[in-house]
Amino acid sequence: MTAREAVRAVLGERWGGAVDEGAAGEAYAPANIALVKYWGKRDEELKLPVAGSLSVSLGDLGTRTRVRRLGAGAGEDEVTLNGRRVGGGEGFARRVGTYLDLFRAEGERYAVETENTVPTAAGLASSASGFAALAMALDKLYGWGCTARELSVLARLGSGSAARSVEEGFVEWRKGEREDGADSWAERLDAEWPGFRVGALVVSGAAKGVGSGEGMRRTAATSDFYALWPARVERDLAAMKEAIAARDMARVGEIAEGNALAMHATMATARPPLVYALPETVAAMREVWAARAEGVGVWLTMDAGPNVKLLFGAGDEADVRRRWPGVRVVAPFG
Amino acid sequence: MTAREAVRAVLGERWGGAVDEGAAGEAYAPANIALVKYWGKRDEELKLPVAGSLSVSLGDLGTRTRVRRLGAGAGEDEVTLNGRRVGGGEGFARRVGTYLDLFRAEGERYAVETENTVPTAAGLASSASGFAALAMALDKLYGWGCTARELSVLARLGSGSAARSVEEGFVEWRKGEREDGADSWAERLDAEWPGFRVGALVVSGAAKGVGSGEGMRRTAATSDFYALWPARVERDLAAMKEAIAARDMARVGEIAEGNALAMHATMATARPPLVYALPETVAAMREVWAARAEGVGVWLTMDAGPNVKLLFGAGDEADVRRRWPGVRVVAPFG
Repeated sequence: MTAREAVRAVLGERWGGAVDEGAAGEAYAPANIALVKYWGKRDEELKLPVAGSLSVSLGDLGTRTRVRRLGAGAGEDEVTLNGRRVGGGEGFARRVGTYLDLFRAEGERYAVETENTVPTAAGLASSASGFAALAMALDKLYGWGCTARELSVLARLGSGSAARSVEEGFVEWRKGEREDGADSWAERLDAEWPGFRVGALVVSGAAKGVGSGEGMRRTAATSDFYALWPARVERDLAAMKEAIAARDMARVGEIAEGNALAMHATMATARPPLVYALPETVAAMREVWAARAEGVGVWLTMDAGPNVKLLFGAGDEADVRRRWPGVRVVAPFG
Repeated sequence: MTAREAVRAVLGERWGGAVDEGAAGEAYAPANIALVKYWGKRDEELKLPVAGSLSVSLGDLGTRTRVRRLGAGAGEDEVTLNGRRVGGGEGFARRVGTYLDLFRAEGERYAVETENTVPTAAGLASSASGFAALAMALDKLYGWGCTARELSVLARLGSGSAARSVEEGFVEWRKGEREDGADSWAERLDAEWPGFRVGALVVSGAAKGVGSGEGMRRTAATSDFYALWPARVERDLAAMKEAIAARDMARVGEIAEGNALAMHATMATARPPLVYALPETVAAMREVWAARAEGVGVWLTMDAGPNVKLLFGAGDEADVRRRWPGVRVVAPFG
C-alpha cells in the first residue's frame, strides 16, 4: 500500500473534498522525547515501526503551522520556516511538499507557514511536532473532523515519531499488526504527573552524520544485536507503563536510560558502526552518572544525535539547574 | 575443582617437587591485544571463558619475571615491581601471593622480581604478560619442563588472558569444554605477518572504575545482549582466522573493530551501565574513522578501559605516525 492510499483509507468519503482559494487551517503540536525508543521500521513507505514506543510530549516546545490553499495560478507551494521563505530545493520544503502530495488534488498548491518553538540548538527533533502540526492544520483546512487516532495515523505518514506528537502528556505508539497501518497509532496514557521534568542539554549543534531513517535501516540490516531489540522494547514498554502508573521516578529513569543505551548499542554494532556520541556527549553522560552517585535523582536519554536529555522529578530540579546552568527545563504537565 | 587441584592435575607426578633455597627461574612473556575479545567466564575459580578469543602478542612489550626460593626463615614473599619493593597489602603483591599459593608447599616463600616493559600509561594490560611470565618462571625454577599447552593452562589460572601470553605471534585461546579446564589453552597460529602493526594511543592514564572481572560478571548477569556474545565470538573467530590466513588487513581490522564495539555494547547494556569510554576515547575513535574515510587503512580496538589501540599494515605506518605523533607502534613479527 502506498502512503497516498493509506491517507485515502483514513479519510474515506472525506477524501478529495475541495476548499476555497485562500482558506486556511492552523494547528500546534508539541515535540516529544521517547522514553522507550522507536528504532526500526517494518514498512518504509507507511512508516510502520518494528516495535511500540512511549514518549512524553513537551508542552510549549513544538511547532505551530498554518496551511493556506493558494490560487489556481500558483506554480509551487510556498514554504516558510520561522519567518524565512524556504526554496523548493531545500530539504525542509521537499519533505513538506512530499507530504502534501499525499493529500493534494491535481494542481493544488499550498502556502505552509511553520514556526518552531523547539530550539533547534537544543537537539530536540522538530520533525515529529512539524508533521503532527501539519496533519492537524490540513484537518482544520479541509474540515475533516479527524479523531485523534486518525490524526496520529496521518502524522505518522510524514515522520514515524510524529504519530506521538498529536497528543500531550505520556503517549504510547502501538506498533500495530495490520499491513495498511490502520492500527499503528499513538494514544495518551491516563497519567498526569505534574512533578515530571525533562531537561535538554545542548552538547553540540552540529548536524548528525547519518539521518535516523538511514541509521534505522543500517542497524536492522547489519547489527546482530538488533534481533533482540523488539523484545527488549516490549519488556521496557510494559515496565515503563507500570513505573509511570506508580509515579516512580527512579524506575522511569532507569528504564528510559537503559532503553536508550540499548538502542545506541544496536547502532554501535551496525556495519559500518553508527556512533552518534561526541566527546562532549560522553562528558555529559558521565556528569549525569556522577550526579546520581551523589544522590541527585537524574537519568539520561539520547536519540540519534549527540545531545543528551535529562529526566528528573521536580524535587531535584534545583540540583539539576545548579549542575547544568544551561539546561532547558520542560514541565510537560504545566 | 579448585585452582590448586587444577595445578596438581597439570603437573601430575611433578607436583610437590622441592628445590634448594636460593634456586631461581626466570622468564619473559609478551603482552597481548585481543583481536577477538575475551569477555565472560564460565568458571570464576578456574578462569574458564564463555567463548574462545584470539590475540596478537606484542613482542618486546611484556614482562620479565624472576622467582627465587627463599630460605626457611622467610616470613613472607618478597615482591618487587619495576625495582620497587611492594608491600604485602598492595593489590599487586596480593595477586602474586594468591597465585603462588597454588604451587607452594607448606611454609615455602618466594622472592618475585617483576619488570614490565609494557608502559603502564599506554593502557596495555600487564596482568596477562605478568602471570604468563610468572608461570614460566616457576616452570624454570622447579624444572617441570612444561609444554606450551601446560604453561598456557597454568598461566590462565592467574589471569584468563595470560593463557594467550605464553606464545608469540597470533594466538588462539580455545574455550574448551571440560570442567577441569584441561582443554582450555592457547596456541600459536601458523601465520607470520611481518607487515602487521599495532599502535597504542594513550588516551588516559586514569585507572578504570570497574575491573574486568567485576565488569564481566555484571555484563553476563544483567545485559540481555550478552546472550548473543558467545555466538558472535564464534563467528568472528572463524572469520578472523580466514582473514589472517589471507593476510587481509582490511578484513582483520573490520572484524576486530566490530568485535570490540560489540563487546562494549554488551557492557553499555549492563545494569548499571558499564561505559569505559572517556570523552578522549570518543575523540580518538572518531579520529580513526576520519582517517579511514580519507583512505588510511587503520582500525581500532578497545579493552575494558579508556584507551584505544590501532591496527594497521606497515604500508600505512607513516600515515598513522603523522596523524598520531604520540602513538607507540609495535611490530609483533619483528
